[in-house]
Amino acid sequence: MPVLPIYHNYSGYGNIKLYAGTACPDLAARISEHLGVPLCGRDISLFPNDNLFVRLHTSVRGQDVYVIQTTSRPVHRNLMELLIMLQTLRLDSAGRVTAVIPYLCYARSDKTDRPRVPITARLVADMIEIAGADRYMTMDLHAGQIQGFFSIPGDVLSAFHMLNDYIHQRLPEMVDPVVVTADLGFAKKGRNFAAAIGVPIAFVEKRRTEREGYAEALTLIGSVDGHDVIIVDDEIDTAGSMAQAVKLVKAEGARRVYVVCVHPVFSEPAVDRLAALPLAQIVTTDTIPIPSECRERLAEKLTILSVAPLLGEVIRRAHEGRSVGEMFNE
Amino acid sequence: MPVLPIYHNYSGYGNIKLYAGTACPDLAARISEHLGVPLCGRDISLFPNDNLFVRLHTSVRGQDVYVIQTTSRPVHRNLMELLIMLQTLRLDSAGRVTAVIPYLCYARSDKTDRPRVPITARLVADMIEIAGADRYMTMDLHAGQIQGFFSIPGDVLSAFHMLNDYIHQRLPEMVDPVVVTADLGFAKKGRNFAAAIGVPIAFVEKRRTEREGYAEALTLIGSVDGHDVIIVDDEIDTAGSMAQAVKLVKAEGARRVYVVCVHPVFSEPAVDRLAALPLAQIVTTDTIPIPSECRERLAEKLTILSVAPLLGEVIRRAHEGRSVGEMFNE
Amino acid sequence: MPVLPIYHNYSGYGNIKLYAGTACPDLAARISEHLGVPLCGRDISLFPNDNLFVRLHTSVRGQDVYVIQTTSRPVHRNLMELLIMLQTLRLDSAGRVTAVIPYLCYARSDKTDRPRVPITARLVADMIEIAGADRYMTMDLHAGQIQGFFSIPGDVLSAFHMLNDYIHQRLPEMVDPVVVTADLGFAKKGRNFAAAIGVPIAFVEKRRTEREGYAEALTLIGSVDGHDVIIVDDEIDTAGSMAQAVKLVKAEGARRVYVVCVHPVFSEPAVDRLAALPLAQIVTTDTIPIPSECRERLAEKLTILSVAPLLGEVIRRAHEGRSVGEMFNE
Amino acid sequence: MPVLPIYHNYSGYGNIKLYAGTACPDLAARISEHLGVPLCGRDISLFPNDNLFVRLHTSVRGQDVYVIQTTSRPVHRNLMELLIMLQTLRLDSAGRVTAVIPYLCYARSDKTDRPRVPITARLVADMIEIAGADRYMTMDLHAGQIQGFFSIPGDVLSAFHMLNDYIHQRLPEMVDPVVVTADLGFAKKGRNFAAAIGVPIAFVEKRRTEREGYAEALTLIGSVDGHDVIIVDDEIDTAGSMAQAVKLVKAEGARRVYVVCVHPVFSEPAVDRLAALPLAQIVTTDTIPIPSECRERLAEKLTILSVAPLLGEVIRRAHEGRSVGEMFNE
Amino acid sequence: MPVLPIYHNYSGYGNIKLYAGTACPDLAARISEHLGVPLCGRDISLFPNDNLFVRLHTSVRGQDVYVIQTTSRPVHRNLMELLIMLQTLRLDSAGRVTAVIPYLCYARSDKTDRPRVPITARLVADMIEIAGADRYMTMDLHAGQIQGFFSIPGDVLSAFHMLNDYIHQRLPEMVDPVVVTADLGFAKKGRNFAAAIGVPIAFVEKRRTEREGYAEALTLIGSVDGHDVIIVDDEIDTAGSMAQAVKLVKAEGARRVYVVCVHPVFSEPAVDRLAALPLAQIVTTDTIPIPSECRERLAEKLTILSVAPLLGEVIRRAHEGRSVGEMFNE
Amino acid sequence: MPVLPIYHNYSGYGNIKLYAGTACPDLAARISEHLGVPLCGRDISLFPNDNLFVRLHTSVRGQDVYVIQTTSRPVHRNLMELLIMLQTLRLDSAGRVTAVIPYLCYARSDKTDRPRVPITARLVADMIEIAGADRYMTMDLHAGQIQGFFSIPGDVLSAFHMLNDYIHQRLPEMVDPVVVTADLGFAKKGRNFAAAIGVPIAFVEKRRTEREGYAEALTLIGSVDGHDVIIVDDEIDTAGSMAQAVKLVKAEGARRVYVVCVHPVFSEPAVDRLAALPLAQIVTTDTIPIPSECRERLAEKLTILSVAPLLGEVIRRAHEGRSVGEMFNE
Repeated sequence: MPVLPIYHNYSGYGNIKLYAGTACPDLAARISEHLGVPLCGRDISLFPNDNLFVRLHTSVRGQDVYVIQTTSRPVHRNLMELLIMLQTLRLDSAGRVTAVIPYLCYARSDKTDRPRVPITARLVADMIEIAGADRYMTMDLHAGQIQGFFSIPGDVLSAFHMLNDYIHQRLPEMVDPVVVTADLGFAKKGRNFAAAIGVPIAFVEKRRTEREGYAEALTLIGSVDGHDVIIVDDEIDTAGSMAQAVKLVKAEGARRVYVVCVHPVFSEPAVDRLAALPLAQIVTTDTIPIPSECRERLAEKLTILSVAPLLGEVIRRAHEGRSVGEMFNE
Repeated sequence: MPVLPIYHNYSGYGNIKLYAGTACPDLAARISEHLGVPLCGRDISLFPNDNLFVRLHTSVRGQDVYVIQTTSRPVHRNLMELLIMLQTLRLDSAGRVTAVIPYLCYARSDKTDRPRVPITARLVADMIEIAGADRYMTMDLHAGQIQGFFSIPGDVLSAFHMLNDYIHQRLPEMVDPVVVTADLGFAKKGRNFAAAIGVPIAFVEKRRTEREGYAEALTLIGSVDGHDVIIVDDEIDTAGSMAQAVKLVKAEGARRVYVVCVHPVFSEPAVDRLAALPLAQIVTTDTIPIPSECRERLAEKLTILSVAPLLGEVIRRAHEGRSVGEMFNE
Repeated sequence: MPVLPIYHNYSGYGNIKLYAGTACPDLAARISEHLGVPLCGRDISLFPNDNLFVRLHTSVRGQDVYVIQTTSRPVHRNLMELLIMLQTLRLDSAGRVTAVIPYLCYARSDKTDRPRVPITARLVADMIEIAGADRYMTMDLHAGQIQGFFSIPGDVLSAFHMLNDYIHQRLPEMVDPVVVTADLGFAKKGRNFAAAIGVPIAFVEKRRTEREGYAEALTLIGSVDGHDVIIVDDEIDTAGSMAQAVKLVKAEGARRVYVVCVHPVFSEPAVDRLAALPLAQIVTTDTIPIPSECRERLAEKLTILSVAPLLGEVIRRAHEGRSVGEMFNE
Repeated sequence: MPVLPIYHNYSGYGNIKLYAGTACPDLAARISEHLGVPLCGRDISLFPNDNLFVRLHTSVRGQDVYVIQTTSRPVHRNLMELLIMLQTLRLDSAGRVTAVIPYLCYARSDKTDRPRVPITARLVADMIEIAGADRYMTMDLHAGQIQGFFSIPGDVLSAFHMLNDYIHQRLPEMVDPVVVTADLGFAKKGRNFAAAIGVPIAFVEKRRTEREGYAEALTLIGSVDGHDVIIVDDEIDTAGSMAQAVKLVKAEGARRVYVVCVHPVFSEPAVDRLAALPLAQIVTTDTIPIPSECRERLAEKLTILSVAPLLGEVIRRAHEGRSVGEMFNE
Repeated sequence: MPVLPIYHNYSGYGNIKLYAGTACPDLAARISEHLGVPLCGRDISLFPNDNLFVRLHTSVRGQDVYVIQTTSRPVHRNLMELLIMLQTLRLDSAGRVTAVIPYLCYARSDKTDRPRVPITARLVADMIEIAGADRYMTMDLHAGQIQGFFSIPGDVLSAFHMLNDYIHQRLPEMVDPVVVTADLGFAKKGRNFAAAIGVPIAFVEKRRTEREGYAEALTLIGSVDGHDVIIVDDEIDTAGSMAQAVKLVKAEGARRVYVVCVHPVFSEPAVDRLAALPLAQIVTTDTIPIPSECRERLAEKLTILSVAPLLGEVIRRAHEGRSVGEMFNE
Repeated sequence: MPVLPIYHNYSGYGNIKLYAGTACPDLAARISEHLGVPLCGRDISLFPNDNLFVRLHTSVRGQDVYVIQTTSRPVHRNLMELLIMLQTLRLDSAGRVTAVIPYLCYARSDKTDRPRVPITARLVADMIEIAGADRYMTMDLHAGQIQGFFSIPGDVLSAFHMLNDYIHQRLPEMVDPVVVTADLGFAKKGRNFAAAIGVPIAFVEKRRTEREGYAEALTLIGSVDGHDVIIVDDEIDTAGSMAQAVKLVKAEGARRVYVVCVHPVFSEPAVDRLAALPLAQIVTTDTIPIPSECRERLAEKLTILSVAPLLGEVIRRAHEGRSVGEMFNE
C-alpha cells in the first residue's frame, strides 16, 4: 500500500512575512531578530484630519503574514492601526493573516457585572475578526475565557513560565518567601504561581465598608510576618491596588517585597507610586513598551524580561505547522 | 410641537407564549403559575432510533416565545431538545424566541487552560444561536465571561441575592459565622457573598503535591476555629471538593457547617457524600431538578429555594420592555 | 512562454491526520488500515456531570484532518462528541477539517410535512458547520437533497454500488428475482437498484384505512408470485415495515426473500423481528456497528460488507486533490 | 396577579403592503382583490443595456411587505427582478419582507446525483436570503427538502388539496378511476393523492435499456385496463414523460385520461404535445401564467384553478400572526 | 371582506430613545429639542489606561434607540465611543438601534486607487454593523457609493438643499455669480449645486507637473472674470486646495468669493488659512463642532446652519415608519 | 539561527485551472493562450424550462480555479451562469475560486441617488460571494468604490494604461489634441487620461432646462476650437451622450474626433449612432464581445485592443503569489 508523503516544516500558507504597527517597535524588532526574518516595509501616517493611512511596500499575495501590534496607550489609535493593517493585508490576498497582540486592550471589560454595561473585549474580538485576521496570538489575558470571544483560532501564551523561572532562580536569596495576590480575582493564578515555586500563598481581601462612604477595608488572609513577599498580578495599571497591598503586607510584618506582573500598563500615576514604594524589585515584560523616562525613574528596581523569544518561537511553529504546546512539554 | 406617543407595557413582539422542554417540568410549571400564563402544548418524543421529535400544538407566528429548558443530566438529550424546539419555533415564524436555561451545561469548559482542548461553552452558545434563539436567559454562569460567548443579548441572573437573603435571616442563630470557599476560582464571588452578610472569609487552597503521585495537599488560609462555617460555591457536582473542604474546616475547629450553592448538579456520588457529611444545612435552588429519592435521602438537611419568581419576573419584564436591572435597584 | 508547474499528489492542507470518536471504532480502524495512516491519539471521557471532554494528544496545526464518527445510538452523545472534536481541531489551527460521518442522524427529519415540526437534519448540518468542519463525507443520505442543507462542500457516497455488485454475483443462484421496495419514497432508488442488476421491480403500497382506526392496508403493486424477492431500503430501523413487506410478499407467493440495506440502524425490536422472519439473507454494511449479540442472533443470515475501503479511498483522493467521481467512472 | 394583555389580530410589523413583479400580474391582482389590499405602485424597467431598474412609489418604512413574483420563463430576469425588489425594500427599512414565489425555479436542481454538478436550488435560496427576504412563501416544491435550503422561515403550501377536491367532485362521472404517476420520484405523493380520493394507484416505470443506445423501456406496474386514469405530477415541463405515460396507459387499456398538475411550466413543445394527446381534461393552477394563445389551443380541455384565495389567506394570517396550519385542520 | 387595520404613526420598535456620545453635544441637544424628546442619561468615562467605559442609566429593552455621535477629531476615540454604545444598547435588548453619524470618518478612504492600501470606510461600516447598529443615518458622504458598504439600511441625507436655499436667498446681492469646484471629483455635485440656483459653473483643474518635482499646475477651466464666485465642496479639511482655488479665481479676475461646504473638518492649519483668505463668507453646518476659538477667529465671515431640524425630522419619520423621501418631494 | 525556507513561484492552492462561461469565448481563449493553460471542459446547457445546467468534466479538488465570464448582454443569463459555475466549483472542493469578470454588470446602480431605489451592484457583489468566489478580478469599474462592496479580496484592473499608450503613439499625427469628457462624473478620470499624455482637457456640461420640459442644455467648458478632440469615457452604452458630445465639440470648432472607452456595451442603437457620427476612430477593448455584424458596420473606424495579456498576466501572478502592482511599477 502506497504511503502518503509527509511534508516536513511544511507551510501551506506561503512564505513568512512580518509586519509591525507603531505601538511596540522594539519588541517587533526583537521578534524579527529572533526569527531571522526582516520586518516588511509599510507606511503608517496620520493625516491632519486624524485619519490613519497605511500602505504596504510589497505584495503579500498568498503569504503567511504576522502583524505585531500591542494595544496599549494610545489604545484607540493603536487598535485602529491594527485593524487597518489587517484589512489591507486581507484585501491584498494574503494567504493567512495572524494578529500578534502582546497586550490586548479592554480585557477587563469582559462581562456585564452590572446591567447596561458593555463587554468591550468581545467587541474588540469581533473587530479583529471582521477586519480580516485568520488567527491571533496574545499573552496572559485577564480572563482565559476571552479566548472564547474569538471565533478564529488563536494562541494565548503566558509569560508566567518565564517570570516564574526568574523568581525561582532568585529564591535562594529570599527569606521564607510567600506569594501574595492583591486581587481575589487573581487568587487561582496566584496559587499556581506559588505552587510552581513551592512557596505558600496569602491573599489581600478588599471590602467596601459601606458605613463610611466609599472607604475600603483591607484584610490580609494568611500570614506574611517575617517573610519576603512576592506580589503577583497579570498587569499593573495605576498601581493603586498594588500600593495598598504593599503597605498592608509591610504593616503585617513583611520583609522585602517583590512585585511581578506580565503587562506594565503603568497608567498615571503608576510610576510615581512604584517609585515611592519600598520595593526590592519589579519584574515585568516588554508586552507594553515602557517610556525611557519611566524606566529611568524606576532604575535598578525594574527588571524587564523580553517575550520576543517566546512570541518568535510560536510564530515559527505556527508557520511550520508544528506544535506550540510541546514548547511547554504539554 | 407634537409629542411622540409613549407605549406602556408595550411589546413589539406579539403575545407571550411559554414552552417547556422535558428537563425541568416543575420549575416550568412554577414559572407559568407565577406569570399566570399557561404552558403551550407540544409533543416531545424519542423515536426508537434515539432521534427526538417535536411538534407544537399551536402556531407561534409573530409571538414572543420563551422556552424553558435546563441542561442538566441527560445533558445531550436535554440540549438537543432545546435546540430542536428553538429551530421549530423559528421556522414557525415566531416574533422573538428566548431560550430560558436555568442551568447552562458545559460552563466549566470555558477556556483552553492546556493545549488542544475544546471551549465547549462557546460551542454550546453557537449552537443555541444557530438553532434560532434571539435572546437567552440563564443563571449564575460558572464564569461571567461566558456571556461574551453569545452574540445575542441575554439576561444572566443570579440566585445569590436570594441565597444571601436566606442566610442573612439565619445569621442570628449562627456562632461567629465565616464564609469559606472550596475553590480559589470562586474567591472573589465568595468575598462578595461574605461582604453582603458582613462576615469574614477564609479559603481552602488545594495544591497538587507532585512528589507523591497525584496526592493533594489542602490548606486553610484564614481561620475557622470556633466559627460556624458557610461554604459557598456556584454548583455542587460530585461533592468531592465539598467533602474535602468540610473535613478540613472541621479539622481546623469549625462548629456547624452550612453549604450554599445555586446549582445542585449532584452527580454520582454527590448525594452519598453529602448524606455522610456532618452538615447543618444544604441550601440550593431548583435550577436543576433533584430526584425525589435524593431529596428524601438528604431529608431535612436540604433546603430548596425556587428561582421561579425571579425567572418569571424577568420574563415578564423582558416581554413588556421594562428594566430588569431595577429589580435589583441597579 | 514558461509553463506553470504541475503539482502531483499535491495537498495544500498539510499532512493527513485521522481521528476517530468512540462511535465506530472498528470501522475507523479498518479505514486507518486501508490508508496505512494510524489513528491519532485523543482522550474522550465523560465527566460524572454527563459532560464530555476531549483532548488531542498531538498538534494538528496546518494539517489535513479527518474525523471519523458515525451518529448512531447513543445519537446525541455521538453527535456532541463529533462537534466537540471538530471545535477542538479548529481551535488548534488545523489546516482543513473533514467530518467523516458514515451514518448521519436525523436524516429522516428533512422537511416539514406538517406544520410546526422541525427540520432537524438542517439543524444538524448547521451544527457541524458552526463547530468547525470545512468539509464532510457521508453515505447514502435518506434524501439526496440533504446535501443542500450544508454550505460546506461534501462527498455523499453510496454503498449501493457495492451492495449491487454483491447481489449481482448471487443472481445465478436466484429464481426469477424481483426487487421490491417497502416504502414508496424509495421507489426511484429501488428502480435504480433493480435496473442495475437487470431484474423487474414491484412495490408495497401502504395506505392508512381511516374507516377503521389507524389500521393500515398493504397492497403489492406488481407481481412476485414464484419469484425470489430482494427487498431494498436505505436503512432498517425497527424493521416494522420490513416485516410487513416480507409477510406480504410471502403471502403473494414469493419464494426466498433477501433483504438489502445500507444502514443497519436496528432499533428495538429490529433484531427480534428479523430473526423471526423467513429470510434467506440480510445484506448490509458497517456504517453503524452491530453489537456482537445481535450479530450472533442473526448468525449466518447476516452479511456485512465493509465501507472502509470506499471511505478510505475517498479520504485519500480528497487529501491528494484527485477526483472522487472517477472511482465510479463518472 | 396582573394578567398580561393579549393582542388580537396583532402585527408587530406595521401595515400590510403588497408588491408585484412583472412575472404574474394576473395572479397578483387576484391576491390583491382577495385581500382587499391594493398593489403598491413601483417602476420596473429594463435599460437598453439589459440591466433592470426598480423604484418604489411610496415608502415602506416599518411596514409588513409581501412581494409576489413567480420565477417561470424568462427565469433569470424574473428571479433578478425579485432579488432587486427585495433589496430595495430592505434598504428602504421595511419592517419585514416576505417573498411570495408561487413557482420556485431551479427546484429540480436539488441534489448532486452525479459528481461536479450544482445544487442550484440552494443557490437560489441563498440569493433570496442575501437580497433581503425575512420570510418566503411558495407552493409544491419538487422536493419538500428544499425548505431546508433556506435559513429563513417560510410557508410551503400545496395546491393538491384544491386539485384533490376538484377531482373528488368529478369522481361520480368517472369509471373505476385509478391514479397513475409518470415518474417513480412522485410515487409517494401520487399515493397520497390516490388515497385522499380513495382510488387505487399504478406506476409507470421508465428504464434505460442500455443494450440499444439510449432507448427507454416503459413498464406499467399495476393495472389500468378498463379504468379511467388520472395522471398526477407536480409540474408539466415539456410534457414528454406525460405523453409517454398517456400512450402507455392507453395501450394498456385505459379509458379516459385526466392529467393533474400544480405548475403548468409548459415549455416547448408541451402545448403541441398536450393538444395532440387524447386527454379528457388537464387540471392545473395559475402559479405560472399560461399565455392566452396556449390557453386557446388547449381550449375546453384546460381547467385552471386559482391559488389566489389560498395565497391571499396565508398572507393575511402571516400578517396577523395567526396559524396557517389550522386552515388545513392541522 | 374584512379590511385589515391600518396603524397610524405606528412604530413596531417601542418608544423613541435618544442617546448622545461626547463628540457633538450641542447638535445632540438641538436634535433633542427639535423632537421634544430628552437625551437619555449615560456615563461615558475614560479610565487611566485609556480604555473607555459606558453605562446606560435606564433600560432600553424593546425601545427604538437613536445614538447621535459624529466621528470628527479625536476620530478613533469618537468612533470607539460610538461602537461601545451600540454594543451596550444591543446587549440591553434594544428593539432597534440607529447610529446617527452626522459626519462619517474615513469616508475618503473609499477605494484602492493604488495597490496595497486599505478601504477603511468599508472597515468602519463593518465595525458599525458588528457592534450592533440595525440602521444608520449620516450626511453627505464623500462618495454616495459608501452607502453600498453597509449591509444594513440607512438614510444618507444631504445638507446641500439647505445650503443651496441659503445661497439662493443671497443671489440678489451677488454680481454675475458662478459656481467653482476646487476638485474635479466634485464636478458633478458642483454642477448640481450650480444648476439648482441657475448659475454657470467653472472648474479648477490641478495637475502634477512631473518635470519640476512635485509642483502642481492649476488651471481654471471656464471663466470667472468679473464674477462673484461660490466655491463649493463637501468638506474643508486643511483648506489647502481651497486656498489654492481662491488665489486662482482671484488671479483670474473674480470679484467676491464665497465658500460653501457641509462638513467643517477644519484640520490644522485650516482656520489660519481661511482667516487669511479674502473671503466674503464661509457657509457651513454643525455636523462637526467648531471650537469657539476658531469660530471667533473667523468671526462674521462664518455662517453655520444647523442640521438638527433635518436630522430630527428624519429620526421622527424613521420612528413613525413614514417616508423620508417626501420631505424632499421625492 | 536556522533560516526559514523561501518558496519560489509558490502556490498554496494547487494547480491552475481555467474555466470559461459562454459570454466571452474569444477573450477566454486568448487568456488561455497567453497563459499556456488550456480551458477545462464543462457542459453548459439551457433546459427547455429556461433553467441553466452546468457540469464540469474533471475534478477541481484542491485546485486554483479561475472562471472567466463577462456579464454583458444577456446580462441575467450570463450572471447566473457565472454564479452556478462558482457554486459547482466550490461544492467540488476547489482550493480557491477566482471570478474573472472583465465587465461587471449593474455597476451604474451603485448608490441610492433618490429614495427607494436599489444598489444593485452591491447585490451582485453579494451574489458572487454567496455563490462561492474566494476572490474576483474585474476591469475599470464605473466607480472605484464598488470594490468596497465586496468582502472578498479582488483585483480591479484598468485598461486605461493600454488605451493611453495607444493614443500616446498616435499623438504625433494629431493637431493640438484636447481631451473631452462627455459626463462630469468622469471629469477626474478624464483629467488623469489627459495628464498622462500631456494634453489639456475640456468638459461637456449637461443641464436639464426645467423651463422647457425635459430638454437639456449642453455647454462646453473649456475650448476645442481648431483642436483634434479625444472623447474619453469608461463605457459606451447607447452612445446617446457620446453623440451629443461629438455634435457639440464639432459645433464648437473641433477638427477630428476620436472616441476612447474601455467597455463597448453598445446597446441599441449605439452602433447606428456611432456609424453615423463623423468620427476619426473608436478605440476600445474586448472586455465585451462585439458581434461581427457590428464590427463590420464600424469597419476601419473601430480599433479593439485585447485585455487578454493583462488579465492573463494578473492570473499568473495571483496564482504564483506575486505582486500585481509591480506590473505597473507600483
